[in-house]
Amino acid sequence: MANLDKIEPRLLKGFRDYSPTEQLARQQMFGKIQSVFERFGFLPLSTPVLEYAEILMGKYGEDEKLVYQFKDKGDRDVAMRYDLTVPLARYVAQNQGQIIFPFKRYQIAPVWRADNPQKGRLREFFQCDIDAVGTDSVLADIEVIACLCKALEAVGVANYRVRLNDRSIFATFSPVTIRAIDKIDKIGLDGVVAEMQAGQVSEAEIARAKELVQGKVTAPENILTILSDLTQFDLQGQVEFDPSIARGLDYYTGVVFEIFLVDKPEFGSICSGGRYDNLVNQFSNQDLPSVGGSIGIDRLLQALEEMGLLKTSQPIRALILNQSKVLEKEYLKLATTLRANGVNVEIYYANTAKLDKQFKYAEGKGIPLAIIMGEEEAKNGTVQLKDLAKREQQEVNQTDLAQILLKV
Amino acid sequence: MANLDKIEPRLLKGFRDYSPTEQLARQQMFGKIQSVFERFGFLPLSTPVLEYAEILMGKYGEDEKLVYQFKDKGDRDVAMRYDLTVPLARYVAQNQGQIIFPFKRYQIAPVWRADNPQKGRLREFFQCDIDAVGTDSVLADIEVIACLCKALEAVGVANYRVRLNDRSIFATFSPVTIRAIDKIDKIGLDGVVAEMQAGQVSEAEIARAKELVQGKVTAPENILTILSDLTQFDLQGQVEFDPSIARGLDYYTGVVFEIFLVDKPEFGSICSGGRYDNLVNQFSNQDLPSVGGSIGIDRLLQALEEMGLLKTSQPIRALILNQSKVLEKEYLKLATTLRANGVNVEIYYANTAKLDKQFKYAEGKGIPLAIIMGEEEAKNGTVQLKDLAKREQQEVNQTDLAQILLKV
Repeated sequence: MANLDKIEPRLLKGFRDYSPTEQLARQQMFGKIQSVFERFGFLPLSTPVLEYAEILMGKYGEDEKLVYQFKDKGDRDVAMRYDLTVPLARYVAQNQGQIIFPFKRYQIAPVWRADNPQKGRLREFFQCDIDAVGTDSVLADIEVIACLCKALEAVGVANYRVRLNDRSIFATFSPVTIRAIDKIDKIGLDGVVAEMQAGQVSEAEIARAKELVQGKVTAPENILTILSDLTQFDLQGQVEFDPSIARGLDYYTGVVFEIFLVDKPEFGSICSGGRYDNLVNQFSNQDLPSVGGSIGIDRLLQALEEMGLLKTSQPIRALILNQSKVLEKEYLKLATTLRANGVNVEIYYANTAKLDKQFKYAEGKGIPLAIIMGEEEAKNGTVQLKDLAKREQQEVNQTDLAQILLKV
Repeated sequence: MANLDKIEPRLLKGFRDYSPTEQLARQQMFGKIQSVFERFGFLPLSTPVLEYAEILMGKYGEDEKLVYQFKDKGDRDVAMRYDLTVPLARYVAQNQGQIIFPFKRYQIAPVWRADNPQKGRLREFFQCDIDAVGTDSVLADIEVIACLCKALEAVGVANYRVRLNDRSIFATFSPVTIRAIDKIDKIGLDGVVAEMQAGQVSEAEIARAKELVQGKVTAPENILTILSDLTQFDLQGQVEFDPSIARGLDYYTGVVFEIFLVDKPEFGSICSGGRYDNLVNQFSNQDLPSVGGSIGIDRLLQALEEMGLLKTSQPIRALILNQSKVLEKEYLKLATTLRANGVNVEIYYANTAKLDKQFKYAEGKGIPLAIIMGEEEAKNGTVQLKDLAKREQQEVNQTDLAQILLKV
């Protein structure tokens, strides 16, 4: 075929692949986070990627324009999920008769936002969410924050800060002011004031907003309780009251928080959440006050990578080299025995490839050991086991091989 | 708010939620399948849900009309992935300079097809794929089939049949004939003949097709090798040559196979795959012969559920009952200690709820044990540990509790 016939292999802007090395790291992070979520009593829920558009609309404030929306083949207005919280509210309202509250669930899944791609910000990214639906207890607020902190620690984040606030602090402010304050990390206090002025906010409100973000305000009662009780989790040094934390989304009603990496502030918040007591109410007549939070795992992954904190274990222990078509049945038999004993092992497929090429394959894939079986070894019931890093080789009995491979 | 203001919580046709009980079962299946895939030397890859539409088009034959396609906000023609194979081919072509071949990857992820929903057939469902790209070795064909069989066995499928064929058998047949034969399980031989007649296929070809599906044909050489070598995996009874297996997708070139549940034939094939030697070629000038297969996990889940073969382990060990606001700090302290010791435990959040309600919560969630700490126990450093199924209770020291909970 001529080049003209080829379709150019390329990705959409803001979308990316994760190579096996990257995806192993990611999956291992998901696994650690999931373990912590379950340790705190959260169980998994799965909701679809596509929802009726009306389910999602009217919940995200000015960010609503970022929702991927289209008409499906049945002419329905559908949308790809923008977060995991609104689908959760829809699920709970739809199944409230079957659910025993409080409903504590986690979900680790991708979301889509037609954002302008920038550092660490993709159009498709995974969120790791926990939520407790149907409880107004401050214990739930505390546990959600503690659980997210422990999940971050489980994936290797040591130096982070939780900045904590309550939406009640903005009760007398206009939406323009709240949105402006939400951007203070990006645009600074002058930017906030400018945005308020552009939004026709009164001078008196601007003066009050300035005082607020400069910390001239006392923390609400629930924030003090949270700060005090988080000492039970050994988190006292990590959490602080910050009256400038507003959270952009419309649905928050009480506690709000964002978590930042001390050594990588440029990544912005890598985890955030808060209390949303009226969201489920938009689909139901039942009052179900709720609290939750979300780890933005792909941004965190990138930050950990930049800090050299990403540790991945490669799961494949050994490659059985392929020296001859005649011996392939022996290779299959050996692989079957090793696998039945719990050893991750692969066979090199091409029996015509030079051994050098086969060693390179193992090294390229990060496989630490090579198993070499020629006719001599096959006859003797042995193999040569080669450590590819140390370049050491020893002859071992096939019957001992599984034990050795599991130990090494 | 009046009822009129509420948005009706509902799902799109062909889409579904998975409740915590269902999703636990599903995740545990994913975990087992992933373990088997890694046991055979496959590593994970992640590709995006959205691709340029032109990447996907022209690969799926008449099923192409089922692809979810739309224009994004940048006026690009985009599509949601229809399978995991074409995105893999795109990835490999795009990164061929960095990849060491053969490239053995797995991917467990959802795909979307605007199919007419029917038994076990959803518009969003997960596929568990393995593929070996860049190898024409029959060993790769054998290992892909064996690995998929072992993955099925790992999730509890005992009674299944692999029906095996090679596309070369259809070399002299027209596309109309191949498509008709592909439907034989649904429409029978008469239906196949009728469809061929409607498609103006010659009487001679119809006669040859009849002979073929009635088995009056010898198996090609590679099929015999595969059948013979699969005995190394103890799979001889599960696999058979079946000349009526055609596979609908356009991209297959060699071996093709489908796996059926003997006890639930109405679910159709729950796993399928084959060799596709020219697919990567559509994006690249490099020849990369490939073979792979896919488990349709959601249909399988439903079949296992109907057969009573679905086993789920509930991960949460105990619920700490909440008797008083005064004791909440003690509950947090105890939970923190237990969790640090690897015990999954939760605290009941509402301190005003009757104990009866709290027991019901634990039972509803499948939590086997309750930890009861009143003022007396808090003072003595003990708790009452209650087995909710046996309705037995014993007093134990808080310092022994983690050990007991991990053992019980």
